[in-house]
Amino acid sequence: MSPDARGLVLVFDVNETLTDMSALGTRLEDAGLSADLLPQWFAGVLRDGIALTLAGGPAPFAQVAADGLRTLLARGRPGRDPEPLVEHILAGLPELPVHPDVPGGVRALLAAGHRLATLTNGSADTTRAVLSRAGLADCFETHLDVRDAAGHWKPAEAAYAHALRTLGVPAASALLVAVHPWDIDGATRAGLRTAWLHRTPTPYPSAFNPPDLKASGVTDLARHLSRPAAG
Amino acid sequence: MSPDARGLVLVFDVNETLTDMSALGTRLEDAGLSADLLPQWFAGVLRDGIALTLAGGPAPFAQVAADGLRTLLARGRPGRDPEPLVEHILAGLPELPVHPDVPGGVRALLAAGHRLATLTNGSADTTRAVLSRAGLADCFETHLDVRDAAGHWKPAEAAYAHALRTLGVPAASALLVAVHPWDIDGATRAGLRTAWLHRTPTPYPSAFNPPDLKASGVTDLARHLSRPAAG
Repeated sequence: MSPDARGLVLVFDVNETLTDMSALGTRLEDAGLSADLLPQWFAGVLRDGIALTLAGGPAPFAQVAADGLRTLLARGRPGRDPEPLVEHILAGLPELPVHPDVPGGVRALLAAGHRLATLTNGSADTTRAVLSRAGLADCFETHLDVRDAAGHWKPAEAAYAHALRTLGVPAASALLVAVHPWDIDGATRAGLRTAWLHRTPTPYPSAFNPPDLKASGVTDLARHLSRPAAG
Repeated sequence: MSPDARGLVLVFDVNETLTDMSALGTRLEDAGLSADLLPQWFAGVLRDGIALTLAGGPAPFAQVAADGLRTLLARGRPGRDPEPLVEHILAGLPELPVHPDVPGGVRALLAAGHRLATLTNGSADTTRAVLSRAGLADCFETHLDVRDAAGHWKPAEAAYAHALRTLGVPAASALLVAVHPWDIDGATRAGLRTAWLHRTPTPYPSAFNPPDLKASGVTDLARHLSRPAAG
């Protein structure tokens, strides 16, 4: 990081970065699917939404997410009406818990004088619901999604530019915080600073631009940003 | 399809469309991972390569594919040197079998007077190896990958435009054949005609532009294209 990391605007990704999506596994099981399908489903949702953005089409998150579940259900529960099951699974999104490191980390970052916001390919309403349940609603000044960025999903430059414009800061004053390397890479190319959260020890993929900072969670990130700059 | 589907140039996607990737499951198991991780890995490879294209970066397939395996191995086989395992798994790509409907279907399409080519986000060399092993090398006039399209992965318009330019045909004379709805959607937006192969009965996702044709495999596609036009 630059010598002075104070007064940054921290822009958090939401799904998996703040929320623990594994809680959706129970709802997959309710629908007769294995909870192990969760990472495959979510990787497919991101693949499809990002592909639609690349090809120039609209990509409403709820629609792409539901489509992915219908595909899994057609294979795993053939002959069963998928719609109530899809609805049941997606109803879990606003009820997701945040990771254990999030509440303390968010409060520490706020206390250190940083501005906090979120930017999701999903829905800002869902973000609000999740953070309200976690008692963190007042810690963030705004919750953004990509519908106001002409529907362009991250990592399109337009998605990050929308956040910068709304927050009224230059790219160099913003720090994108995410668990997804493709998000770190896109934010870097858009000129933002970046922090990669890796709660499990995995290597950072070589094909992507590296983050400015690596932290094991939001609490650890707050520690990193409160350190005095080295000589 | 238009009344006269004869004399089309058929542009086949390769991974999963022609090849049966489930054969890689054995190699995942050799490396100590569950074969069930295969769809998650491949969805992640596509997500990451497409995301890099959207963000404006290079996305060499082999590098993105290896990165994805390293992430899975860091979780599933922590503390073990991943590189020999990654190498062993990826060495399976040129040895993949084609689906059972491919040889007869390809020969029927060729016999019906169509020109055949491939276009992959992976490697044209791998395609050549796979189709040589299947005894189908001579059926295709060329094998293309996206390295010559400035590295832009499908569904970027540039990838399809590269194929049309190389094949010397207008978009309306080309039929993109793929199992992946995001590829069908991208080809449609680039002006090509499209055929979606669905070997297992799954619904076509609502967020994507629909294909001109649906077929259960390449043999079934050949049947569709040989039917006299209605009315």
